[in-house]
Amino acid sequence: MRKKKPNIDRIFHALGDPTRRAMMEKLSHGPMSVSRMAEPFDITLAAVVQHIQVLEECGLVQTEMVGRVRSCRIEPTGLDAMEQWIKDRRSLWERRLDRLGDLFAEQDKKR
Amino acid sequence: MRKKKPNIDRIFHALGDPTRRAMMEKLSHGPMSVSRMAEPFDITLAAVVQHIQVLEECGLVQTEMVGRVRSCRIEPTGLDAMEQWIKDRRSLWERRLDRLGDLFAEQDKKR
Repeated sequence: MRKKKPNIDRIFHALGDPTRRAMMEKLSHGPMSVSRMAEPFDITLAAVVQHIQVLEECGLVQTEMVGRVRSCRIEPTGLDAMEQWIKDRRSLWERRLDRLGDLFAEQDKKR
Repeated sequence: MRKKKPNIDRIFHALGDPTRRAMMEKLSHGPMSVSRMAEPFDITLAAVVQHIQVLEECGLVQTEMVGRVRSCRIEPTGLDAMEQWIKDRRSLWERRLDRLGDLFAEQDKKR
């Protein structure tokens, strides 16, 4: 079991690849073995393992041995880092508009 | 002014490029002209314009003419689509753990 610190550059590089995004989509239904992960993809098992390693190294996926089978699951650390990046990118201007919206909502409640 | 429907594949492709990510970071401080956007990058203005077009076409950036100057700003549509993708990738398992956490928190409040 390896756990790496998320690096936003590596996360975006990892998810820039459509096969790796499809793997994340498959894993969002629940943990599964590497060989089951490989099923829908028309690539070698070695290539699948390599893609999983890229996802694991940037904190998007975690793998562990369950008996003799390597099991994969989504690791929230990478998703958290991405969500934070998105939040930070929303401009000050938008956040100001949001606060204005909250103010109006509060005023409505008081009526 | 163009506004395109966000496509998650194009968004991830766009943000897979470090220059485009740096542009998003610059824009998160507020709207600015294309030429001011170009300032810190060691590439031609034409290349900057091309990067901005990629960001605009997937709904991450919006540009409009203000007098004779083209102004850029972050467009929330693309960020919203990304946030939704992240939410959908969090496994059912994690969401179940969250609900369990909420239940414990509610029980604590009742004591």
